[in-house]
Amino acid sequence: MQLWFYEAYGDELLAGFKARDVLFRGQSDFQRIDVIETYGAGRMLLLDGLVMVSTSDEFIYHELIAHVPSLHHPKPENVLVVGGGDGGTVRELLKHPDIKQISLCEIDGLVVEVCEKYFPELASGLRDPRVRLEIGDGVAFVRESVSASFDLVIVDSTDPSGPGEALFTGDFYKNVARLLRPGGLMVCQSDSPWQDTAVLKRIQRNVRAGFPFSHPYIASIPSYPHGLWSWTLGALHPLDLCAPDVKRLAALQQNYPLRYLNEDVLRGLFSLPNCFRQRMSV
Amino acid sequence: MQLWFYEAYGDELLAGFKARDVLFRGQSDFQRIDVIETYGAGRMLLLDGLVMVSTSDEFIYHELIAHVPSLHHPKPENVLVVGGGDGGTVRELLKHPDIKQISLCEIDGLVVEVCEKYFPELASGLRDPRVRLEIGDGVAFVRESVSASFDLVIVDSTDPSGPGEALFTGDFYKNVARLLRPGGLMVCQSDSPWQDTAVLKRIQRNVRAGFPFSHPYIASIPSYPHGLWSWTLGALHPLDLCAPDVKRLAALQQNYPLRYLNEDVLRGLFSLPNCFRQRMSV
Repeated sequence: MQLWFYEAYGDELLAGFKARDVLFRGQSDFQRIDVIETYGAGRMLLLDGLVMVSTSDEFIYHELIAHVPSLHHPKPENVLVVGGGDGGTVRELLKHPDIKQISLCEIDGLVVEVCEKYFPELASGLRDPRVRLEIGDGVAFVRESVSASFDLVIVDSTDPSGPGEALFTGDFYKNVARLLRPGGLMVCQSDSPWQDTAVLKRIQRNVRAGFPFSHPYIASIPSYPHGLWSWTLGALHPLDLCAPDVKRLAALQQNYPLRYLNEDVLRGLFSLPNCFRQRMSV
Repeated sequence: MQLWFYEAYGDELLAGFKARDVLFRGQSDFQRIDVIETYGAGRMLLLDGLVMVSTSDEFIYHELIAHVPSLHHPKPENVLVVGGGDGGTVRELLKHPDIKQISLCEIDGLVVEVCEKYFPELASGLRDPRVRLEIGDGVAFVRESVSASFDLVIVDSTDPSGPGEALFTGDFYKNVARLLRPGGLMVCQSDSPWQDTAVLKRIQRNVRAGFPFSHPYIASIPSYPHGLWSWTLGALHPLDLCAPDVKRLAALQQNYPLRYLNEDVLRGLFSLPNCFRQRMSV
């Protein structure tokens, strides 16, 4: 038997992954959850049939969402992750000795359970003493949190359709902005730069509703739609996007060799090709 | 009827493109040639079932293979393109007023005919008075050409299996090096950076056999395998890879707005993420 998993990117494109086995199939209160073992992309977590994590390339997504804001903030101590129940973002954040506490609010407890069982190399950090894990609605958590309580807020959500939709509105980003201490930063995943420009521009406009200074950045993720992904950094103050803290990066690399980011890549990360500047302009 | 074209990337991954129509199906002395009209990626040229050109993203491939060497050379006047019968590389080279003559040696005359009919926006430049079009074997052309006769040699080949194989050997690159005038540059397409590392390292080693100074660079091409492609620049002298001629780029942009490259992207193009440094090391 040949087993293939297909993900459709709209009605006109798809990607196929030959699968060795289906390890888990379940339905939570929020979404369908599947875990498959593929030949070409490692083990995959699928939410509502969309690839969220592939063990072959998850390092890229998680390095980019965690270290970019951490190294653009002078001293991040208190971090909030909204979503991110697989644990990959927390695993990367824990590599920063400055970070004293990470609060993670994941809406779907079954995602955490499944990842602890099937993706221990991602989820193990969720039980670290520096991590405060909360199963609940990220929108409510953000709305009810005390103002000026976080240095970084990382929105590690699913796509803007489905349960993640509320994490892409202007009102949500305004509430996130309220949570930041002076000098604080927000980062969110912001879809494939090859996605429809209407979707991309709406995300960028909504981020801008909360953050007067915001800029997308991109990286290759072969198991994600169109092989390219974007994140957007938001701030309440002007930022020098070419000046990450490379001393702290060097110290980090000593203890935890990164597989994607290095000084040169980090300095040039916000230099986008013309087509993406246009597609992701506000 | 739903019509889909699938390209397999090895045995374990594939991409699917919903097709509106099949415009041409043919067999030359060298390869199978198909032209299809897709919904999501525009019109596609397929050689032996592999996507060579998609009108939705061909601008990226052709800007990267033509302008990077042109802007790293102080004054390219005489250029050789090996392969590239679709005409896209020539179209971009013709944007440089310094370039006085372009010789193009394409092995397959049917590729040129098909592209002139179905991809006029790529092929039109092939009839420009500055272009000398030769249908013949690129390996023989390079072997028999006069030493020190070109400022740039651009190897715009198919993949290293099939008719393009001979364009990836160390002997071929040594012969290419012989053709270069002092200060000359070579560039070749060098496969997806997510390709098997054995293939990638072999390409890099073979380039290095002809060129003591060589370095790959990468860009997103969603219709190509894994959504990411690489090219490799080769020189007989040390190069400052962060110092393209941005004045000539600015002049170019005035007349022909580029859709991918800009000054910042060009300066950072050779800064590769750690995983690709490793995968494409010699």
